[in-house]
Amino acid sequence: MHLKTRLTEKLGITHPILLAPMGVMAGGKLAAAVSEAGGLGIIGGGYGDADWLEAQFAAAGTSRVGCGFITWSMARDPKLLDQVLAKRPAVLMLSFGELEPHASHIKKQRVPLICQVQGMKYLREAVDAGADIIVTEGCEAGGHSGYRGLFTFVPEAADYLAKHSPDTVLVAAGGVGDGRGLAAALLLGADGVLIGTRFVASKESEAPDGFRDAIIRADGDATMKSNSVDVVRKRYWPNPEFVIRVLKNRFVSKWHGREREIEKVIDVEHERFWNAFKAGDAEDSGVLMGEVSGIIKDAPPAAKIIDDMVAQACQLLGSSTRHVVR
Amino acid sequence: MHLKTRLTEKLGITHPILLAPMGVMAGGKLAAAVSEAGGLGIIGGGYGDADWLEAQFAAAGTSRVGCGFITWSMARDPKLLDQVLAKRPAVLMLSFGELEPHASHIKKQRVPLICQVQGMKYLREAVDAGADIIVTEGCEAGGHSGYRGLFTFVPEAADYLAKHSPDTVLVAAGGVGDGRGLAAALLLGADGVLIGTRFVASKESEAPDGFRDAIIRADGDATMKSNSVDVVRKRYWPNPEFVIRVLKNRFVSKWHGREREIEKVIDVEHERFWNAFKAGDAEDSGVLMGEVSGIIKDAPPAAKIIDDMVAQACQLLGSSTRHVVR
Ligand SMILES: Cc1cc2nc3c(=O)[nH]c(=O)nc-3n(C[C@H](O)[C@H](O)[C@H](O)COP(=O)(O)O)c2cc1C
Ligand SMILES: Cc1cc2nc3c(=O)[nH]c(=O)nc-3n(C[C@H](O)[C@H](O)[C@H](O)COP(=O)(O)O)c2cc1C
Repeated sequence: MHLKTRLTEKLGITHPILLAPMGVMAGGKLAAAVSEAGGLGIIGGGYGDADWLEAQFAAAGTSRVGCGFITWSMARDPKLLDQVLAKRPAVLMLSFGELEPHASHIKKQRVPLICQVQGMKYLREAVDAGADIIVTEGCEAGGHSGYRGLFTFVPEAADYLAKHSPDTVLVAAGGVGDGRGLAAALLLGADGVLIGTRFVASKESEAPDGFRDAIIRADGDATMKSNSVDVVRKRYWPNPEFVIRVLKNRFVSKWHGREREIEKVIDVEHERFWNAFKAGDAEDSGVLMGEVSGIIKDAPPAAKIIDDMVAQACQLLGSSTRHVVR
Repeated sequence: MHLKTRLTEKLGITHPILLAPMGVMAGGKLAAAVSEAGGLGIIGGGYGDADWLEAQFAAAGTSRVGCGFITWSMARDPKLLDQVLAKRPAVLMLSFGELEPHASHIKKQRVPLICQVQGMKYLREAVDAGADIIVTEGCEAGGHSGYRGLFTFVPEAADYLAKHSPDTVLVAAGGVGDGRGLAAALLLGADGVLIGTRFVASKESEAPDGFRDAIIRADGDATMKSNSVDVVRKRYWPNPEFVIRVLKNRFVSKWHGREREIEKVIDVEHERFWNAFKAGDAEDSGVLMGEVSGIIKDAPPAAKIIDDMVAQACQLLGSSTRHVVR
């Protein structure tokens, strides 16, 4: 059994599952693993680093993968976009920032455009920019997000698209960790899901072991949104609506709400943070993870995550619904 | 077609739908309407007012209804609990506060105990207190809630209960507005739903017309969490984890983040606020509503809301799944 939706049709993939373009964590190896397992892997272009991108596309080998950027950061150096477009990616995904002129540029190259949005305002902008696929990101997501909960955002977005742009494909992100989440997302009105945290806790992610273990250990109450992690990394996000979700660890407990004090010792703390990060120290660095960590208990290969998720969703959706193909 | 779940069995009701015990808004008339339509109405005991409670139980007439309290507030005057228990309510629901000694007291009277919880920590406490039914409330809910999103909270709670307390029935609250939400909640692992905002926008709620219209007009981005509404009402919530979600209206836009300044003019603002509230002025008072307002377009009788919701959920769940009874 598998699931056939407008997303699988649009992208020519087997399962309606996309890998979230997670900066650092979603490299070529993980993206290739997700694509080979029947989903679509999207390399995490993140803030943008030309050498890292070259290395990750090389690591993906001949697998068909896409790439995603943090839009406002990529916009400071748009030749990164051309670098990636030259590789004919399966999709190009933009999150967090002004869509133009990048959206038009991507569409002119006939690469499918995915926009990740954090509220109805951004959804309307993505429709106007001609996005082929829109990802509604709920605030339970790992990493940056806005304020909307996924449970209400998906049906509202589905209603808007049905009325204003019926051919746009809708994908749900934020909190999907197993077949229950996939099945629920489809019933809420999505055509598929985009998954971050669950794939960080996979064999092929670039996460250090300490981070994988932290996700496995955490319950869903153990995360919070805190600007402290952006401030110490000197990631100055221009739109305060987007706040990062991380493990409530020793670093965050110490500095959350005291962001202006970090600034005073930024050189020391910046170095300390990145050293801890590189060492896989989940307490003194920042571990981006979503509330879904509460149902994650292992870190198997990406293919097993996908197979189990699809099997469980098919079982839950039963045999007679429109999504199930035998 | 209708839906049969552990919740309908436990309470002997037709549909797995509970009315949220919304202070002021969920009076006896609405509670009776929900129960007569096959769900279960729960009168909103709120902060606790003996005369109002008498009037609402009278308004419910012979319909079988329950009652819910804001626990920390009722605890200041526990004879309110005895007043309600003397009426042999269908259920007694506690939200927000220390469960004991009230939980034991309710159980001794053999009235089914429902606890609404806002995180895994509170869920564990509710299990330990012997709750018959636990409501996981997501932060997209109208009124007070914690920080967890419903989409991740339900499956995590379901896993916990399956392991530690398999007979406890699980209900999802926060963001359910139609059959998509009901169906998704069941697939995520809940046995039913508890609904607030969608029933405020019903014919039988105690809401002034201005509030109903505000819910119908609002999109899901139009709400926010703001302590300003509690401060101006002199509702001093002891646990800062619980913040109220309201329409981002003129009052909130003016005062959010300036709560200490409200205190300086509290007498004037308090009176102004309540006068506006009584007049149904949705801009200068506080309108408690959830993100689900984005999919609410009308205010029909409660029975129609329930019938449409169940019909849509049955249709979505298809004919072969375990929840569907023909
Ligand atoms: C470790 C991590 C890094 C992320 N980095 C990015 C990023 O660089 N760009 C982006 O658009 N989204 C990023 N996200 C957010 C994802 O795109 C996605 O919305 C999110 O992971 C979905 O929620 P989930 O983690 O519960 O699956 C990141 C998420 C995580 C967990
Ligand atoms: C107007 C309003 C008043 C509320 N008052 C209470 C209350 O007094 N006690 C309580 O336990 N919950 C209260 N709630 C929260 C509900 O119990 C429930 O969790 C919430 O309405 C579910 O989310 P929804 O509004 O999206 O359906 C209130 C909610 C609303 C909308």
